[in-house]
Amino acid sequence: MADIFLLKDLNLNLTQRSIGTDKGLAKIGDSIVNLTYSVAKSMYLTRNNKNNKIIRTGKKVSKTILAEALKNANMKSFSKNRADAHDLADTVEAIIAYIWISEKMAIKEIIDFLLDSLTGDLYERHIEIESARIAFTKLLNHIKKFLPEN
Amino acid sequence: MADIFLLKDLNLNLTQRSIGTDKGLAKIGDSIVNLTYSVAKSMYLTRNNKNNKIIRTGKKVSKTILAEALKNANMKSFSKNRADAHDLADTVEAIIAYIWISEKMAIKEIIDFLLDSLTGDLYERHIEIESARIAFTKLLNHIKKFLPEN
Repeated sequence: MADIFLLKDLNLNLTQRSIGTDKGLAKIGDSIVNLTYSVAKSMYLTRNNKNNKIIRTGKKVSKTILAEALKNANMKSFSKNRADAHDLADTVEAIIAYIWISEKMAIKEIIDFLLDSLTGDLYERHIEIESARIAFTKLLNHIKKFLPEN
Repeated sequence: MADIFLLKDLNLNLTQRSIGTDKGLAKIGDSIVNLTYSVAKSMYLTRNNKNNKIIRTGKKVSKTILAEALKNANMKSFSKNRADAHDLADTVEAIIAYIWISEKMAIKEIIDFLLDSLTGDLYERHIEIESARIAFTKLLNHIKKFLPEN
């Protein structure tokens, strides 16, 4: 969506790890994750609000949630050896940035995908954490097909 | 781009201040500002790199830069009375979220607009601050026409 030229060096020798350990991609992905989750959550809460109240909210997705999603999707191979939760979360962010820059999914599609995966009462903190974990796991499983096999 | 339904309550009685002081919009806009500036900066640095090196970077845009852009664009009327720099920056973020959600500009268009406005050696901190300030001022001036007149 941004400019595929930004991936030119990576695409020369594309591996799971070259995507998943790229620090620049992780920084770009951090904003994409927060933007798409914030809008998906706002739409979910608005849709499920009994008083027809419109809810707009922003939410930083925690590193723990993203790290667990990567593990649940069996995609730790995209991260470096002995990665901690912070590294694993960065890997999720880098993958999502890669998918977006390479035009496999638009921001709107990521939002819709997350929205369709959210369930339960997100005002309950532990339910939101579980719901976000599942939504990002599903997203990672969905985008596997756009990523290198090793 | 996200879902215009999310603006339904605001659009019932749309004023500069109802957009510019909405906390939910500001949170969503925070991610849009960081994403679009990060990608614009990456594209700018890549385009101007003498060794054909691809540069991917993420950058949180400082509140000071956004606050100054709002003042330079003469748009303080969108913020609350006696707003401090943090409030003014939140107003910029809310305005940009409003423009995006109401589909006046896509993420890609905001990136291209910022990219066209960046100048100078962004590796010099004071030059980057000045360049970002000018780019966001130009963006605000550009989107004025999509916003209420009072």
